[in-house]
Amino acid sequence: MILMNDQFITRGEAHIDIEDRGYQFGDGIYEVVRVYDGKPFRFDDHLIRFERSAKELSLSLPLSSEEIKLKITQLIEMNNLQNGIVYFQTTRGVATRNHAFPTDSTSVLTAYTKEMNRPYEKLQKGIKIVTIEDIRWLRCDIKSLNLLGNIMAKQYAVDHQAYEAVQIRDNIVTEGSSSNFFIVKDGKILTHPANNFILKGITRLVIEKIADKIGIPFVEKEFNLKQVYQADEAFVSSTTMEIMPINQINDKTITNSPGSITKALQEEFEKLIKLN
Amino acid sequence: MILMNDQFITRGEAHIDIEDRGYQFGDGIYEVVRVYDGKPFRFDDHLIRFERSAKELSLSLPLSSEEIKLKITQLIEMNNLQNGIVYFQTTRGVATRNHAFPTDSTSVLTAYTKEMNRPYEKLQKGIKIVTIEDIRWLRCDIKSLNLLGNIMAKQYAVDHQAYEAVQIRDNIVTEGSSSNFFIVKDGKILTHPANNFILKGITRLVIEKIADKIGIPFVEKEFNLKQVYQADEAFVSSTTMEIMPINQINDKTITNSPGSITKALQEEFEKLIKLN
Repeated sequence: MILMNDQFITRGEAHIDIEDRGYQFGDGIYEVVRVYDGKPFRFDDHLIRFERSAKELSLSLPLSSEEIKLKITQLIEMNNLQNGIVYFQTTRGVATRNHAFPTDSTSVLTAYTKEMNRPYEKLQKGIKIVTIEDIRWLRCDIKSLNLLGNIMAKQYAVDHQAYEAVQIRDNIVTEGSSSNFFIVKDGKILTHPANNFILKGITRLVIEKIADKIGIPFVEKEFNLKQVYQADEAFVSSTTMEIMPINQINDKTITNSPGSITKALQEEFEKLIKLN
Repeated sequence: MILMNDQFITRGEAHIDIEDRGYQFGDGIYEVVRVYDGKPFRFDDHLIRFERSAKELSLSLPLSSEEIKLKITQLIEMNNLQNGIVYFQTTRGVATRNHAFPTDSTSVLTAYTKEMNRPYEKLQKGIKIVTIEDIRWLRCDIKSLNLLGNIMAKQYAVDHQAYEAVQIRDNIVTEGSSSNFFIVKDGKILTHPANNFILKGITRLVIEKIADKIGIPFVEKEFNLKQVYQADEAFVSSTTMEIMPINQINDKTITNSPGSITKALQEEFEKLIKLN
């Protein structure tokens, strides 16, 4: 079953109009929420970010966050999803094509669930990343449907036998194509400040809280690729990748990955999943 | 009637899947072609650009340019369109959501026609523009469906009682939210070089040819806002706006708009429409 606005419909009934602004302009926002053992993880944090993205684009949501939460929780039960994700998005709706915001359109919410295993093996062994120029727009803080830059970066990773591409803008390492990026140096976790150049990840937020709990400094600070090569540990985070160790950056292999701090974060993350 | 791939269907039958990559990532490209007296204008130039956009995104078109031209010409006749536009787009098609290019999706082409009058009054009187920071990605040369930056700029124009917003990146004036931007100084036409920071407009291409024909230097060169304020004339161009004089830039009124060179270009453009 699919959720469309406040209605549950079958997958076959779920259609979008060709003049939906999501289809013509990428004019919309989205979220991906992890479901562990039938329960959404950090759902409230995702909903807060969803509301923020909507506000930044002056987009009215068709349902309140409370209603979205209720309906999606029902959808998860209805589809009997145990482990996987819920994807939901809202576009500005159908209107005669014109760049400026239409005054007469009604936003369209769609949501679906998907089974997805946790990436157990990669979480233990780590992944290879490559670096690429960050060509995205200057509002990466909005979780929008304008994802071509991200797509091209991810495809670059695939083409280079890597699992993720980490982007660099004006010599500063920003984030992965669908993840935040972190290094560990001298016992501190470093990551790009949550400004307009990166998306403020929900898993990033969890990591910040874990770091605080176990007494590891969490430092939001710009750094360059040279500093990445000199780091003790490196990892990316996302809702689907969780806390993912990096064992190779371009041609440089990182020995002893995952490092001790990455492992400590992963262990605390496991506890939070169990408590969910 | 609507064209979907190589089929003509009714508007009511035209639906898109919720997992179309155009809807989830803005993963697609488009063109808008003017139709004057039933005949598409500079159709070949649009098709060449469409093919280029597809190539830059490694997107396979479902039909060849010749087939698209044939089908769209039939669509124009079928819908009895005299004066208006044809909009067509292609997305990478339906696939399970994943940033990297799917290997199993089939691109989806959609096209529709729309009646639209030429903006006669504005072409004579000119328009007001405002300037805004260019926050778009660094591949503005691709005519993609990732248009949020353009949308937000256009909405800024509307909010400031202007018709177009002209964007400025790193102190350099790039282009309008849906148009190219030109100034005239000392008898020369100046416009931003056709690199990754702007879309190489088809009307811009026509202007270049007209300028060559009537002996006005067409100079591709970066300039800043100060130079814009000191210009003798200014105009924007697009398929729907044609050659559109500017009579106000932010708070500065431009007297005697359209200026003589803008007028000369407009007159030659009229001749080309008549010859179409």
